[in-house]
Amino acid sequence: MTAIPPEVDIREVGPRDGLQIEKPIPTAAKLELIDALAATGVRRIEVTSFVSPRAVPALADAEAVAAQLGRWPHVTFSALVAGLGGVKRALAAGLTRLEYVVSASDGHSRANVGRSSEESIALITPIAELIHRAGGTLEVIVAIAFDCPFDGPTPPDRVADIARRAVLSGADALSVADTIGTATPVRTTDVLTRVRAAAPGVDLGLHLHDTRGQGLANAWAAYASGIRQFDASVGGLGGCPFAPGASGNIATEELVYMFEDGGIATGIDIDRELDAARLAERLLGRSLAGRLLAAGGRPAPAGN
Amino acid sequence: MTAIPPEVDIREVGPRDGLQIEKPIPTAAKLELIDALAATGVRRIEVTSFVSPRAVPALADAEAVAAQLGRWPHVTFSALVAGLGGVKRALAAGLTRLEYVVSASDGHSRANVGRSSEESIALITPIAELIHRAGGTLEVIVAIAFDCPFDGPTPPDRVADIARRAVLSGADALSVADTIGTATPVRTTDVLTRVRAAAPGVDLGLHLHDTRGQGLANAWAAYASGIRQFDASVGGLGGCPFAPGASGNIATEELVYMFEDGGIATGIDIDRELDAARLAERLLGRSLAGRLLAAGGRPAPAGN
Repeated sequence: MTAIPPEVDIREVGPRDGLQIEKPIPTAAKLELIDALAATGVRRIEVTSFVSPRAVPALADAEAVAAQLGRWPHVTFSALVAGLGGVKRALAAGLTRLEYVVSASDGHSRANVGRSSEESIALITPIAELIHRAGGTLEVIVAIAFDCPFDGPTPPDRVADIARRAVLSGADALSVADTIGTATPVRTTDVLTRVRAAAPGVDLGLHLHDTRGQGLANAWAAYASGIRQFDASVGGLGGCPFAPGASGNIATEELVYMFEDGGIATGIDIDRELDAARLAERLLGRSLAGRLLAAGGRPAPAGN
Repeated sequence: MTAIPPEVDIREVGPRDGLQIEKPIPTAAKLELIDALAATGVRRIEVTSFVSPRAVPALADAEAVAAQLGRWPHVTFSALVAGLGGVKRALAAGLTRLEYVVSASDGHSRANVGRSSEESIALITPIAELIHRAGGTLEVIVAIAFDCPFDGPTPPDRVADIARRAVLSGADALSVADTIGTATPVRTTDVLTRVRAAAPGVDLGLHLHDTRGQGLANAWAAYASGIRQFDASVGGLGGCPFAPGASGNIATEELVYMFEDGGIATGIDIDRELDAARLAERLLGRSLAGRLLAAGGRPAPAGN
């Protein structure tokens, strides 16, 4: 009898969600970071967005980055799109695993993409068709799944309903995103349970921000409830450089530490992950907010 | 049928564990902080240590602080002691709920109190007798319950064995402490399960540090396994002011947010807790590491 060790599947989103709010860095610097991330053993990287370069100048070089991804054949790369134009650009650039965001609140949806939530849902069908014709896959990310800065708390059934309709409209996979970092374990588990019931059997990931220090607790609660796919960003990249502590995504190295220390395999080497985080600090010219990054890993056993 | 809402019991340790490594602040400033903490609704505060003023100059005013505690009759105050001399001082100062630390590793025990782990265990009986004669109670804190910076990983059965012997020696309650912040949810649950089996029916609390970003995840895992007593420090007070991110205890406001947002009562008002954290920042003259403190609470519902 051989027990199968538990494992989780972490998607590194630093190059996209982490860098999108930073001052633009050169394409060569991004490729250096992607190279360091690929060396950690991570299997999936969300590498850029095909969106308006005016809206997100930091990711204006999406095509230039995409052109180099053949260097890392063992990594599955994906990109974010916000509409049909972005899908066409991404497919032309050779990226076929695409993510499309639907905000569960109108307030955030309009602020983010200038469309209502319903208008965003209506776009899933043509986006999915375009991607599927090119042999690609579409993941729909339900953003603002817990609270909206404009509209207040998001009804959990609204999130589940969007997930159900996304799958009916052609989504191959789903994610739930705590976009502003207000979720806690009880609500995380509740929303995920409803989404699974609304879209049974569909791949479901969780995208967490650590803005209020709750990120890893939510990840653990989600793991305990059966979730195995998590987004995270190297060094906790993201957030606002002008608001100390207002961090971005949960830090990949802290998520890896949490799982690996408990015997749950991530496929990611923690030391190489810390190297990548230090590289990100050098490339951005500032310290990142990660606590593990500041403290270092667990002390070595005596005698080592 | 009335459902009993779940609740947890948080002990504020900022005035002791938080301040002990800081530059001494005036007694009046401590009383101002204690006043702000008492106003949050917290029911228990670990208020000082009766230890050598040379070893811990920041808490040299233990007697002066203790003399003022009658101002807050609704709060249960406790203090840390390291030996019989400290017990006598604490009892003379009117503090009868005392905590005594046993390090589960010899390396840390010698560095901390100049005694082996066994020598510290041997002191429990006389300490308990002295406290019980004065009508007080003794909580034994098993420190270094996960990893030692000198001796490496702590065998979980060693922690359980110390807990069992502490109760046999007269301890009325137990805590398990992740002194250097290396624990993760799987190991937290494992150690707590063993301690409960070794000391069934004894009050058991958990003392976590957030040094590697794991604190709240561990608290959630412990809650899920049945633990209801948690230490935390306002603003995440503690840690080294010269190592950004090397935080101290888990931040009280983040623990309160995690539980209250999930419908688990703490008795603590989150806004007053944030006020107390901002006061701590003013009294210490520096920013604290708490993420919720930097970000603020959950946005108000629309229209509010």
